[in-house]
Amino acid sequence: MKIIRTVTEMQNTSLKLKRDGNTIGFVPTMGFLHEGHLSLIRRARGECDILVVSIYVNPTQFAPGEDIDKYPRDIDRDERLCEEEGVDIIFYPTDEEMYPEGYLTEVRVKRLGEILCGVSRPTHFAGVTTIVSKLFNIVMPDIAVFGQKDAQQAVIIRRMTLDLNFPVKIIVSPTVRESDGLAMSSRNAYLSEKEREIAPALYRSLCLAEKMIKSGKGYDAIEIIVKMRKSILTAGPFDIDYIEIVDAETLEPVENPAGKDVLIALAARLGKTRLIDNIIVGKSKSKLK
Amino acid sequence: MKIIRTVTEMQNTSLKLKRDGNTIGFVPTMGFLHEGHLSLIRRARGECDILVVSIYVNPTQFAPGEDIDKYPRDIDRDERLCEEEGVDIIFYPTDEEMYPEGYLTEVRVKRLGEILCGVSRPTHFAGVTTIVSKLFNIVMPDIAVFGQKDAQQAVIIRRMTLDLNFPVKIIVSPTVRESDGLAMSSRNAYLSEKEREIAPALYRSLCLAEKMIKSGKGYDAIEIIVKMRKSILTAGPFDIDYIEIVDAETLEPVENPAGKDVLIALAARLGKTRLIDNIIVGKSKSKLK
Repeated sequence: MKIIRTVTEMQNTSLKLKRDGNTIGFVPTMGFLHEGHLSLIRRARGECDILVVSIYVNPTQFAPGEDIDKYPRDIDRDERLCEEEGVDIIFYPTDEEMYPEGYLTEVRVKRLGEILCGVSRPTHFAGVTTIVSKLFNIVMPDIAVFGQKDAQQAVIIRRMTLDLNFPVKIIVSPTVRESDGLAMSSRNAYLSEKEREIAPALYRSLCLAEKMIKSGKGYDAIEIIVKMRKSILTAGPFDIDYIEIVDAETLEPVENPAGKDVLIALAARLGKTRLIDNIIVGKSKSKLK
Repeated sequence: MKIIRTVTEMQNTSLKLKRDGNTIGFVPTMGFLHEGHLSLIRRARGECDILVVSIYVNPTQFAPGEDIDKYPRDIDRDERLCEEEGVDIIFYPTDEEMYPEGYLTEVRVKRLGEILCGVSRPTHFAGVTTIVSKLFNIVMPDIAVFGQKDAQQAVIIRRMTLDLNFPVKIIVSPTVRESDGLAMSSRNAYLSEKEREIAPALYRSLCLAEKMIKSGKGYDAIEIIVKMRKSILTAGPFDIDYIEIVDAETLEPVENPAGKDVLIALAARLGKTRLIDNIIVGKSKSKLK
């Protein structure tokens, strides 16, 4: 396994690999890898000749006051895990390499980046689409794998890739959960023992929503969201940012979810930690997985 | 020469050409080709194996009320000229192909797109950087040639290419002028006979500025701009949008241009036609040509 720290070396390496007829698979991460990342890496491993994982805590997707400085890091452990999963190259650049002096360009997906998590994090998704555009041009992958855990991000990246004609196939891989249902996230490391215990209430509320939609009783979105909210707030001192039921592709609100492909997405704070989770319910559920 | 009308065919063609070891040169145009475009095509022709010219009047770089509908078009003549210049492929897509339903993504270079022409055309440069990003991903060129005539555009595209790590070498080719000094432009076709006669006053004012800077008398930017303005307004009924003396790379205003690399840029309306022109003055003038 090779560790590459500069844009030029990564680009030259990818150009050579492609000229030699290799397909490149890519998993962009912010490091501190957990089972969720590893499932993306395994998925990509099966679909390419050369597997590149990037590890970069991208400053432009954090707002001032957000948790970039305390974002957990452990590059030695990440390297070991990548090695074990058969990763060929880790791209591990510095901030100076990615955003040199004079940097001015932004890639933005309108509307989709301004709703759901975009309401409380208005600059977040432009940061994500900008860094992913850069990484696509640097790594030049044939396929790239993202997690369904970040459902809105996955929809936005699909849209951006299509809109800007990046020759990259986007694969979205299912959320990996702890045995009690909590979605894996690097941010779970921030939770106190007590908070960790009550955090799975978020996933339980999503399962409750799925059950209501599939009950055949025709519950509308408001009825479902009220029940979810109640079940979460009964479980512990959550501060709910949003719970929404939206079209799984356009992210437009859906009033009557029965029989449609919907994304049920939520964000809530537990103590100082912001957690997100989601499920897709609908007939062609598999399409987005 | 091949004419390609879909994104998929262009991408597949470029992928195959690159796999076979060819370098691709690219000249993006809005068609209605004149000697200025042909000089870009000739420049690119000498630097690549396969030469692609795109012809696409990009709607996102025109504001409502701007001249997109009356923008001059002549695809048959353009084809003939490309054939004569040894162009290998014309990429000539439709609006539906470039901006299909649901399109939402924008590429924007902050600050550089908001000054000079960006003041009166606030959405123009985001339209340019977005379409050029798309075209880079579709045509996958090794080099791309742009005209110095559109000086601000050239600076912005260099910045975007660098910032987003597009593996494309940008070449900026000198402005081609009519024998009386008027910069070649498709928009010159809008000028009446009388307007055409007085239009070269813009270039004469730029030459006057160059002479003042090189005089060794230490004229500052304001003195030079006042003289330029006077010489233009004496020549005819111009409506001056701006005249600015800026750093040739950062586009920051320069107060004392002597001995520096400066771009002297202007835009003015003559009747209903908006004309732009510019020159670079300075020691490393050649760097930007």
